[in-house]
Amino acid sequence: MNKSIFYHAGCPVCVGAEQEIINLMGEESLHIVHLGENQKEIPTAEEFGVTSVPALVTPNGVVLHINYGASLEEVKA
Amino acid sequence: MNKSIFYHAGCPVCVGAEQEIINLMGEESLHIVHLGENQKEIPTAEEFGVTSVPALVTPNGVVLHINYGASLEEVKA
Repeated sequence: MNKSIFYHAGCPVCVGAEQEIINLMGEESLHIVHLGENQKEIPTAEEFGVTSVPALVTPNGVVLHINYGASLEEVKA
Repeated sequence: MNKSIFYHAGCPVCVGAEQEIINLMGEESLHIVHLGENQKEIPTAEEFGVTSVPALVTPNGVVLHINYGASLEEVKA
C-alpha cells in the first residue's frame, strides 16, 4: 500500500477537504473512495478504523479523521 | 504563506498525527507550532479558525482538524 486512501461521501465538508488534500499531497499519492457510491467499500474502511468521513488512511495504515462530514452510520443509512 | 502550519500541543494524538503528516508532506512543507509551549501563538491559530489540536492550516488558509487531541480551551488552561 503506497498510496493514501481518502474516504469521503460527497458531503460539502468532504469536498472541501478533498481539494485541500489533493493540493497538499498530489492526486497521484491518493486513492479516492466515495463511500456513498461504493457502499461495499465501507467494511474495508471500518477495518482500517475509519468511523467518519472525510478520513485519510496513510500508507502506514494510520487513520486521520479530517474535520467532520458524516459518521459511517449516516453514510450507510 | 507557502508552508502549511501544523498546530499541536504535545498530546499523544498530536504526536502520532504529526509523524504521519511529516511522512506524507515532508518536514520542509511544514511549520510546526507547539501551542502548549507557545501560548502567544494561540490567538493567531484562533484567527485561522483552529478550535482543537492537532490541526493543519494549509497555504490556502483552510483549517483541517485532524483527529482530536484537545480543544484550544484545554490548551489555555
